[in-house]
Amino acid sequence: MKRVNIILFDDFTALDAFGPAEVFAKTEAGCDIRYYSRSGGAVTCSIQNKIETEKTDAIDRKDILIIPGGIGTRRLVGDEDFIRKLKTLASESEYVLCVCTGSALLSKTGLLNGRKATSNKKAWEWVTAQNKNVHWIKEARWVVDGKYYTSSGITAGIDMTLGFISDTVHRNAAKKIADVLEYVRHKDKNFDPFC
Amino acid sequence: MKRVNIILFDDFTALDAFGPAEVFAKTEAGCDIRYYSRSGGAVTCSIQNKIETEKTDAIDRKDILIIPGGIGTRRLVGDEDFIRKLKTLASESEYVLCVCTGSALLSKTGLLNGRKATSNKKAWEWVTAQNKNVHWIKEARWVVDGKYYTSSGITAGIDMTLGFISDTVHRNAAKKIADVLEYVRHKDKNFDPFC
Repeated sequence: MKRVNIILFDDFTALDAFGPAEVFAKTEAGCDIRYYSRSGGAVTCSIQNKIETEKTDAIDRKDILIIPGGIGTRRLVGDEDFIRKLKTLASESEYVLCVCTGSALLSKTGLLNGRKATSNKKAWEWVTAQNKNVHWIKEARWVVDGKYYTSSGITAGIDMTLGFISDTVHRNAAKKIADVLEYVRHKDKNFDPFC
Repeated sequence: MKRVNIILFDDFTALDAFGPAEVFAKTEAGCDIRYYSRSGGAVTCSIQNKIETEKTDAIDRKDILIIPGGIGTRRLVGDEDFIRKLKTLASESEYVLCVCTGSALLSKTGLLNGRKATSNKKAWEWVTAQNKNVHWIKEARWVVDGKYYTSSGITAGIDMTLGFISDTVHRNAAKKIADVLEYVRHKDKNFDPFC
């Protein structure tokens, strides 16, 4: 059973994290989904609730890392301690999936330098200004470069995660999950009506 | 600012509740979103985390009620105390939005008797057996009958909520939110590729 580590912080966008989490929760083999933040404890999010987390220092397995976006990323791009810890986590994880402005955080680690990535279209100027050494691709539902998956805004994270399941498990596995979610998925990474 | 009361219970499906919550959170006027359960405290959900709730007895405004689905509904349809309290809440609320198997719970209150409603396609036989006096409509993304909105499985709740915003605020308001979510919405209630 794969471990899915979701990195949270105050003011993350709930659906960025919980859309992919629901996809992983519906995999046939199941996933061990865990929630972390730098200090542990309850973190705030876009839907006016708090989510319990463990401390990132407690992460003992590093299969799949999910980094959501949200208003909270605006502060964190300038937080050197957070970015340094994220860099260690991301480089040691087997796969890294960023949703929405989560890719702004990952870009600050330098791990996306010279790689292709995408992000939220409403925050495009801000995100891409965080690191000019990333090959930012605007017209994309999601982008894959090696072990790094990055998606456009919010619900694009659901398509990216289904795409990830299709790539790493089987395309039928992704279809089954989309059917359970009654989700009309977009299989084409380059589909982008919001660009 | 509208109050959105989300009724939770152990083993609810996270995306059923948090998809609509994210839509309401993105409204221009904002919404006061609150989370309740019968006993209050932390409740479990499909994505392997717990969500903090207040006691339903503490609900002091009854604008919009959201009832998610999930495995937890299987127990609750037989829980007379829960159903009686839900009936009071639903009848006193201005609008009631059920996602997925949440409509099984609402059907047990009798409030859907003689009304049109829909539900999850994977659990169709079970849901519709809960109350034969509901006019169950299988082929639908969502169904509206008076103040009662019911949707198909999981992500259909996002389309229903956008449809609700379109009906009660303005269709441009729904479009703006879908754009922020980068969600390719289905505006047609009768669209149903999962039927």
